[in-house]
Amino acid sequence: MGYCINHPEIETRYLCMKHNIYLCEHCLECRDPDIYCKFRSSCAIHFISKKGFDSKTQKSLSKEFSVVFLPDDVRIKIPKGTTLLEAAQKADIYVNASCNGQGSCGKCRLILESGTLGNKPTSLLSDREKENGYMLACQTKIADNIVIRIPEETLEKKLKTAGMGVDATQNLAGLVQKFDPMVKKYTLKLEPPTMEDTVSDLERLKRNLRRAKCDTVKMSSGIRVMRQLTQAVRQDNWKVTASVLQKKCSLELVDVRPVSQEEKSLGMAVDIGTTSIVVYLVDMQTGEVLSAASGHNSQSSCGDDVINRIVCSEKKGIKKLQKMALSTINNLAQRALASLAQSHKNIENITISGNTTMVHLLLGIDARHIRREPYIPTISEFPIIKARNMGLKAAHYAGVFVMPGPAGYVGGDIVSGILYTGFHKKADITLFIDVGTNGEIVLGNNEFLMTAACSAGPAFEGGGIRWGMRAEEGAIEKITLNSETFEPDYITVDNKTARGICGSGMIDLLSEMHIKGVLGQDGRFRINPGHPRMTVFNDESAFILEFAKNIDSEEDIIFTQSDIRSLTLSKAAIYAGFTVLLEEVGMDFSMVDQMIITGGFGQYLDIEKAITIGLFPDIQREKFRYMGNSSIAGAYMALLSNTHRQQAIKISDSMTYVDFSSSTRFMEEFTKAQFLPHTESKLFPSVTRSYLNSPYLN
Amino acid sequence: MGYCINHPEIETRYLCMKHNIYLCEHCLECRDPDIYCKFRSSCAIHFISKKGFDSKTQKSLSKEFSVVFLPDDVRIKIPKGTTLLEAAQKADIYVNASCNGQGSCGKCRLILESGTLGNKPTSLLSDREKENGYMLACQTKIADNIVIRIPEETLEKKLKTAGMGVDATQNLAGLVQKFDPMVKKYTLKLEPPTMEDTVSDLERLKRNLRRAKCDTVKMSSGIRVMRQLTQAVRQDNWKVTASVLQKKCSLELVDVRPVSQEEKSLGMAVDIGTTSIVVYLVDMQTGEVLSAASGHNSQSSCGDDVINRIVCSEKKGIKKLQKMALSTINNLAQRALASLAQSHKNIENITISGNTTMVHLLLGIDARHIRREPYIPTISEFPIIKARNMGLKAAHYAGVFVMPGPAGYVGGDIVSGILYTGFHKKADITLFIDVGTNGEIVLGNNEFLMTAACSAGPAFEGGGIRWGMRAEEGAIEKITLNSETFEPDYITVDNKTARGICGSGMIDLLSEMHIKGVLGQDGRFRINPGHPRMTVFNDESAFILEFAKNIDSEEDIIFTQSDIRSLTLSKAAIYAGFTVLLEEVGMDFSMVDQMIITGGFGQYLDIEKAITIGLFPDIQREKFRYMGNSSIAGAYMALLSNTHRQQAIKISDSMTYVDFSSSTRFMEEFTKAQFLPHTESKLFPSVTRSYLNSPYLN
Repeated sequence: MGYCINHPEIETRYLCMKHNIYLCEHCLECRDPDIYCKFRSSCAIHFISKKGFDSKTQKSLSKEFSVVFLPDDVRIKIPKGTTLLEAAQKADIYVNASCNGQGSCGKCRLILESGTLGNKPTSLLSDREKENGYMLACQTKIADNIVIRIPEETLEKKLKTAGMGVDATQNLAGLVQKFDPMVKKYTLKLEPPTMEDTVSDLERLKRNLRRAKCDTVKMSSGIRVMRQLTQAVRQDNWKVTASVLQKKCSLELVDVRPVSQEEKSLGMAVDIGTTSIVVYLVDMQTGEVLSAASGHNSQSSCGDDVINRIVCSEKKGIKKLQKMALSTINNLAQRALASLAQSHKNIENITISGNTTMVHLLLGIDARHIRREPYIPTISEFPIIKARNMGLKAAHYAGVFVMPGPAGYVGGDIVSGILYTGFHKKADITLFIDVGTNGEIVLGNNEFLMTAACSAGPAFEGGGIRWGMRAEEGAIEKITLNSETFEPDYITVDNKTARGICGSGMIDLLSEMHIKGVLGQDGRFRINPGHPRMTVFNDESAFILEFAKNIDSEEDIIFTQSDIRSLTLSKAAIYAGFTVLLEEVGMDFSMVDQMIITGGFGQYLDIEKAITIGLFPDIQREKFRYMGNSSIAGAYMALLSNTHRQQAIKISDSMTYVDFSSSTRFMEEFTKAQFLPHTESKLFPSVTRSYLNSPYLN
Repeated sequence: MGYCINHPEIETRYLCMKHNIYLCEHCLECRDPDIYCKFRSSCAIHFISKKGFDSKTQKSLSKEFSVVFLPDDVRIKIPKGTTLLEAAQKADIYVNASCNGQGSCGKCRLILESGTLGNKPTSLLSDREKENGYMLACQTKIADNIVIRIPEETLEKKLKTAGMGVDATQNLAGLVQKFDPMVKKYTLKLEPPTMEDTVSDLERLKRNLRRAKCDTVKMSSGIRVMRQLTQAVRQDNWKVTASVLQKKCSLELVDVRPVSQEEKSLGMAVDIGTTSIVVYLVDMQTGEVLSAASGHNSQSSCGDDVINRIVCSEKKGIKKLQKMALSTINNLAQRALASLAQSHKNIENITISGNTTMVHLLLGIDARHIRREPYIPTISEFPIIKARNMGLKAAHYAGVFVMPGPAGYVGGDIVSGILYTGFHKKADITLFIDVGTNGEIVLGNNEFLMTAACSAGPAFEGGGIRWGMRAEEGAIEKITLNSETFEPDYITVDNKTARGICGSGMIDLLSEMHIKGVLGQDGRFRINPGHPRMTVFNDESAFILEFAKNIDSEEDIIFTQSDIRSLTLSKAAIYAGFTVLLEEVGMDFSMVDQMIITGGFGQYLDIEKAITIGLFPDIQREKFRYMGNSSIAGAYMALLSNTHRQQAIKISDSMTYVDFSSSTRFMEEFTKAQFLPHTESKLFPSVTRSYLNSPYLN
């Protein structure tokens, strides 16, 4: 034994016979002399051959490195050349990575605690950050055994978005009148066979199902149920529970068990969003939501928006993304089940609501043409699928209903929203908006349904905003500025130390800055650069929301000129969408009777301020309704009732999709809406700027 | 090194430290001192511990033996305690074992060439056989490394039963008028999507299917086809072939591929008999039978009849039998495909015809109650099953139609027979008999169908008959006796050296013996025991059909008093069945317009002789029709046409099953029919005995 010539603190048994020096395992593993080995690779090879490493050891030495992720001490072996982001994904650690590893969002910041890494230069990290060991996970390849710390702001935290917990489900009570699940249960007492009554077990069961008004002519049965039948009917003295799955035009006998083995029948409603996934577990007898769970869609590490996800699926295969979404859902279901002390085998009905890309990827269906003109999805109306065929943990025969979606950029989540809010059954003209990454709009009533997507981008969900984040712990969700000093006063989600700013906080901030003169109508800073809150980041002006020292951070929480630009573009896209969609049917805002807003804002969404920045139209405030997560609510309704499932299909079929991507009218309106609140201020008569002649303003 | 104290010819390194003697590996393996080890097991154990065998060696030493099967030199490792029959099954060597290993049929004779075996005493082997190393495979447990020779008569040979080859299929031409397979193909040219026509890929396909008269409202689609859709429609410039599986009340889109990847569509008709399995490969466009293959149902090693098979499935699990049947079918299909140079992926349609037990076991469905009063099958009408779900090698989406069967002992093979012979559509009264192991009878016309099974037993298929065999190479299938000397003159299948006697041969023989006075009307030998052809076997009189010396065998081919008894019981059961079934509807033989005989006899079935022994009624000879394997013919019809599949279901539904198992009338008639030809000789006016006063007769 001796001490490594490169790492004198490490005792090692590897002696180079040629040079008569010791090298530690790290040095033997590292073939790149430029990184830290003082001896050439030829030495290491010589070494290995002299010491007679077996081929297995040699292979593992030359190929794999160990990575430790702190604070949770997650350990993983990783082949050389893997990026840190890929390593984190493999270790099931969900780090923010809005841009899908392109090195453009700067969110996947990790800190190197020990070991050496070769990382590409980036302008997204400040010099101080670089000095402190910060690096972008997606830009860093592993070539050493390393220890990595994941900073607070990079780790994904518990979601606190409105409308996701069981407490939000009280609105659902009474929504469904008659329960009619996909898997219908029949409890039957069969007549035991005699020499005079020798029909087969299956025929005997069918006879009794017919008496219970089940249309057995349309009924088939799977091989699994045929195999269990003989024992099942006899075990409990011919008393059985038969489960029949209702498909589009046929029935399938999916389970037969002795009546004594009957268990609680659960349903699961799933809202699969690009950002987050929500799961409800429902008692199929009472309709009660027994438990709920929500979490980040673990596909997030492949990019914030659907386009990035599709690109990722094309590059790395759909299966990768499918697996990520499935594991998120299965884990959430497991968590919700654990709180009920129930097994996944009791889940017999599942409904899934999500945008077109999300459901395609979840089902492993090619989504590539959604992002290419003319933007065609593979499927719009899905058949009833068996849970086991798509990888969801549930009863093996559980039926899955996927909410249909009318277009590539208007999906089942919007159909769910219509189903839940019910405006498709009323004469009132409704303008419906789901503010997510895409900004889907529906205009209509009981006579027509027009829809469009307006590429709002993920700004309101924190994407593309330097300190933007979702409505998680520590997100600034409400903010006011002092009219004179512009000192901010804010509230964070759960009153935790500020970690960033979420959608409702950004609307507040933009509105305050606009009203109070910090910004001009063109969205540019009017405030004096010498203001104590002003700083410069990457050659841009930026407003400091919170100083690093107050929040025990390396960096101030800032709001840059680029962030303002991103938000302004988003709000302009949505407003332009409203305008052009109304125009399509010869209407204007004055004819709108109701304005429904859904989506994952924080609970403090301030409609008034949203109007102030020109996101929503300046119409009577009582016309506005914020309805939280309408996608999961619609999924819940479809879970319990075939009427609602059929209605969803009808809604989807009756929606007319308007494509804005090549509309010059949309581009005109979009350009006009990029002012605060709008180039035509007469459209926003109630918005007045109230700023004083502050010494800080130019 | 030293020499084993038990086997002085073997050099060994295993020295017992305690006794200071050498033992070879064989001795160490053998823990049973009574068999051949002179040293107690305690010594062997002592040995192993002293020499420090590693646990793996010790385990293998104490657990496995090598068995070599000649003449094909098949080698296999077998745990101690396994029977030779089980070893042969594991090695995929199909030895005759009519009684399912109960030690009662004496057919699984094997010859020990080297090594030692501990076998139970049996009266089924002659002393000479025992001396020559013969043993019953099912009664012999392996406790040594051994070499076994499989004698000619034990190995199963190529079937030559009538109606199984392609040459027998000429009768099928023109049987099916309109082809309507389960999997229907649509070749379509879709319109490429545009910004004005943005429906999803699936909706676009459905639109075109609707134009091609496919009822897409009833159509669902599996997840697999949804996953392949996007690429499939675009690959060949929107020209596709869509395959739609027609189920009972719904359709399923099962495959979409670019038109250039379209391949020949094949169908497979399978007749799964208790004894043998026949496979036809059919061109689904022309209806032509392209190739055929037949072989033994490899379940045969679990017993000759359905009862033994059910018992075996209860003891050893259904999966074992299911696997045997599946591998037989898959192997036959492979053979048939090879002759066409086609892949199993081209098989898109499959029909299966078999008795109720066979199809239950093939599908892995519990059959145990078929053998218990009131004899209830699990399923009588089967849904369309996917080939992949049942383990058949075919296109993954291939549909499988299983012929429905009305009762536990009257199955889909009989329904197939009716479908093929078509008497259910005519006014003529038909009596239909399938002489297999069970003897199923149908009486009826276009107004009624009565059916019964009469437990004839497997005698006509060679079961329970010492030299009985199926119509394979070397089976005596035609035989006459010299009227004076009683010297036999016979023909064998393929003119090969005689190996035994098959059904048609036995009918000939029994008839000859009866007519010529060798037997009395009671079926007992009247011939002088001193006749050169007479011998004694197991204390019974027996007639020598062929001397051992003429056929290079250890044993004469004989026909014993027990064999005659078995045959007489079988023919009596069938005749009694006819009588009682006619009685049930107030009819007698004179009212029968047509008598159809099907089943696996050799090609020389002599109706006249069958009447002579009282198997068939003494009615006009022109009423008889022998129709070969009607089960496969019916399966062929159902393969091509939905009309025929639906007709099969109707036939099965309309059949009334009469149970003979507790019928006193059947027992009375059965007893009366045990004479040759019958106790009431007036029932057989045309049968006269022609024997001379031979000096050999008592």
